[in-house]
Amino acid sequence: MRKTVVRERSKVILRNPILVEGLPGLGTVGKIAVQYLRRQMKAKRLAELYSPHFAYYVLVNKKGSVRLLRNEFHYWRNQQSENDLILLTGDTQAQTIEGQYEVASSILDYAESKGVKLVITLGGYKTEVKDTPRVVAASTNEQILKMALESGAISSPPGNPIVGISGLLLGLARFRNVDALCLLGETPGYIPDPMAAKNILDVITSLLKVEVDLEGLEREIDRSEQIMERMREIEKQRQLAVQRMQKAEEERVTYIS
Amino acid sequence: MRKTVVRERSKVILRNPILVEGLPGLGTVGKIAVQYLRRQMKAKRLAELYSPHFAYYVLVNKKGSVRLLRNEFHYWRNQQSENDLILLTGDTQAQTIEGQYEVASSILDYAESKGVKLVITLGGYKTEVKDTPRVVAASTNEQILKMALESGAISSPPGNPIVGISGLLLGLARFRNVDALCLLGETPGYIPDPMAAKNILDVITSLLKVEVDLEGLEREIDRSEQIMERMREIEKQRQLAVQRMQKAEEERVTYIS
Amino acid sequence: MRKTVVRERSKVILRNPILVEGLPGLGTVGKIAVQYLRRQMKAKRLAELYSPHFAYYVLVNKKGSVRLLRNEFHYWRNQQSENDLILLTGDTQAQTIEGQYEVASSILDYAESKGVKLVITLGGYKTEVKDTPRVVAASTNEQILKMALESGAISSPPGNPIVGISGLLLGLARFRNVDALCLLGETPGYIPDPMAAKNILDVITSLLKVEVDLEGLEREIDRSEQIMERMREIEKQRQLAVQRMQKAEEERVTYIS
Amino acid sequence: MRKTVVRERSKVILRNPILVEGLPGLGTVGKIAVQYLRRQMKAKRLAELYSPHFAYYVLVNKKGSVRLLRNEFHYWRNQQSENDLILLTGDTQAQTIEGQYEVASSILDYAESKGVKLVITLGGYKTEVKDTPRVVAASTNEQILKMALESGAISSPPGNPIVGISGLLLGLARFRNVDALCLLGETPGYIPDPMAAKNILDVITSLLKVEVDLEGLEREIDRSEQIMERMREIEKQRQLAVQRMQKAEEERVTYIS
Repeated sequence: MRKTVVRERSKVILRNPILVEGLPGLGTVGKIAVQYLRRQMKAKRLAELYSPHFAYYVLVNKKGSVRLLRNEFHYWRNQQSENDLILLTGDTQAQTIEGQYEVASSILDYAESKGVKLVITLGGYKTEVKDTPRVVAASTNEQILKMALESGAISSPPGNPIVGISGLLLGLARFRNVDALCLLGETPGYIPDPMAAKNILDVITSLLKVEVDLEGLEREIDRSEQIMERMREIEKQRQLAVQRMQKAEEERVTYIS
Repeated sequence: MRKTVVRERSKVILRNPILVEGLPGLGTVGKIAVQYLRRQMKAKRLAELYSPHFAYYVLVNKKGSVRLLRNEFHYWRNQQSENDLILLTGDTQAQTIEGQYEVASSILDYAESKGVKLVITLGGYKTEVKDTPRVVAASTNEQILKMALESGAISSPPGNPIVGISGLLLGLARFRNVDALCLLGETPGYIPDPMAAKNILDVITSLLKVEVDLEGLEREIDRSEQIMERMREIEKQRQLAVQRMQKAEEERVTYIS
Repeated sequence: MRKTVVRERSKVILRNPILVEGLPGLGTVGKIAVQYLRRQMKAKRLAELYSPHFAYYVLVNKKGSVRLLRNEFHYWRNQQSENDLILLTGDTQAQTIEGQYEVASSILDYAESKGVKLVITLGGYKTEVKDTPRVVAASTNEQILKMALESGAISSPPGNPIVGISGLLLGLARFRNVDALCLLGETPGYIPDPMAAKNILDVITSLLKVEVDLEGLEREIDRSEQIMERMREIEKQRQLAVQRMQKAEEERVTYIS
Repeated sequence: MRKTVVRERSKVILRNPILVEGLPGLGTVGKIAVQYLRRQMKAKRLAELYSPHFAYYVLVNKKGSVRLLRNEFHYWRNQQSENDLILLTGDTQAQTIEGQYEVASSILDYAESKGVKLVITLGGYKTEVKDTPRVVAASTNEQILKMALESGAISSPPGNPIVGISGLLLGLARFRNVDALCLLGETPGYIPDPMAAKNILDVITSLLKVEVDLEGLEREIDRSEQIMERMREIEKQRQLAVQRMQKAEEERVTYIS
């Protein structure tokens, strides 16, 4: 494999499909969201993307088999409203600048070949810890942005950079007959953040008029909150220890001089 | 997008156009100068250059829309003298060696397609703080260099490297039927330096026999001078603090030993 | 040379050949194993692979001649069982991500052209020092994995990444009509580890039903064990010295304060 | 310019030409040697090589003109013996692995087009300071190596890596109908080393049976020796100062505890 390839696994025809991307990134927010959707919707395997711009290792699975790093497309036939979904998630993003552009272009090539007219990209938005983290939106299309705001998102501040695949897909969509929307969940980003993922899913399900049971995410949020609590406790102890040391040192110095 | 592309937005025919480049670099000198010209001249959109060698993020604009990093060409129909202008500025330069050569080549390809016979590149030239910073010039054409010197520039010292797009455009122009001139404003380069930009514009307007009101830049210079003043004050305080600490330490050491 | 090339040195037809790869990596395990096989089997020169993704230096040989870094294919006509072997080892792996994918693809292209249906890759598996290091296996084919386990290997834990050429050959084989097996010898990996190599060879000779005298490796293992012993001794002395210093310092601090 | 190009400046036919390469490297040995030959022989401009793998800046020359970094070919019509010479030197080597292979390939393409059957590459060989530094040789051709040894060189120790263009030209020559010899002058390599360059030229002039006045290099050697002497003096002073400080500190510590 000397360039990025998409290998299709099912030859299906989809009805006005929308591509929803969530690859690893800040707080793993996008990936958690899309993986959850995929499981909850029992989405079916559509295609895989492989690239020489991914890291050069393979992963062993449960049966002792191995596979290259990849991105995966799954599809969901929507019975509730008018758009089928293509869900894109995976192990990794491209490791180089040129690789990022090539992979994003390959994703759009494939999406267009399936008739996609709207791409929604998901990710994290770096903020301090907040009681009620929000969802930040940007779009290539004013009308779609407005719909996202009506579904609970707030508008991204101007000048904000959106890094990686979630940004490039929007930037590159403008050169094609495709609209694009980016939804970023506010997150401190230290550890995987299912709360931010749930916030995005609240917006996206409202926007797409689909119902998805988000209760499974609540359990993840509780677990994540416990980890954060423990980390905060450790940090507090560490700071106390540092303060004690500094005080001891100051006393010693004072004593000497 | 897998290689650098120029997307033309207006199909205009220009009269003996000269390309003036000012992309981000030392002290943001070139970019400030060209952006100011563009606003002052009310130059019109001509084309955009996109490249997989730019950083892989997009920027959100005021309306919540997004766009890739890019370089922009604007044109100005010159009523005052014989050459129309193409102004080139933008968000960034290429991030890799090979990308720098590719982007510079793409710029020259496009410039030649518009009939450009002269390219002027603008940037900063690293110097200590000076009361009267100057403009340093180099050119592929002795006659044009002479004209720049007559317009107030001084000749670049030999062996001086000109880094990035402002240098490569000159180096690559020599393989084409295009002349090139580089004007570098002396600058300490710590912060955006509108003074150095104004100095360049003094030379270039004289050289091209165009009149541009530079008063707007004076306000920028005042603001920049205030920032520098504050930074100098902070630095002075910091040095005083360091001296006090060193003195205290010396006394302590003397006392001990 | 602007891309990876394989130069064939012998035009031979091989009987159901299996490719066994062992290039430099953790503990040099794979390379030691394949080099030993090559010598022991008196395997014959088949082909060489050169790549602009290898490091840019040449090596001087005993006669004062030089050669590029390379990977080498040797073949062995198997009189004991049904598969001839192609042994692949060499100086280096590719130095960049894209280079790793290109070289792995070139190896598979060549292997397929020789009729290879099974690739076995060898390497090291990072563990603490152990009395009885084991051999970890993964495969693209359940049946072949089972045979490896019956030959003494254990199954790789899921989620384990296999880095570099030994992993990529498996990952890429899945897109071709080729099976692949990876055998990794447990090793601390600090120094070349002939013990881990021998453990792999025990598995592979059993698996392939070939007999190879492994006594030569025993000598290497003794020598390596002596080096490790000396290193452990040095480390112990170093730790004692550190402890003495810390104790002296503590006493001094106690004394002062 | 998107790939490496050679631009020929003179269309001359050369008699059994030998290519002698000396580009920047350890101790600048190769470059000093070839530059000296070029000046001494009044060699004439033949061609220039430009590459997007060179660093992305241009150099200003004495007249305020600029040029890209480049490698230069000059030719010398040999009246003394049977081989004309092509001398290759320049500003830089390629900055990436792939660039090194591409540039070396382009050099050999051009050399072959001029009928070159032998390439001699020059460089430095890292050693401690020595009273009588030697010249180390390696070759793709046993006969030519023998001639180099008879001309005063010694054979390179096996396993020695020859890094960069001087090595790659030998490694790549083997795939072509071209022989190659590498001569490396022993040098500490801290500063440009004209002594090592002269030692190489002693070998090469003897080997090629050409006479070149090397007196000009003697002056360079004297100047270089003075610089080294001053550096050694500075280093000695620095070490004395460090010793004094350590002693003072030890006394203080002793005093406290």
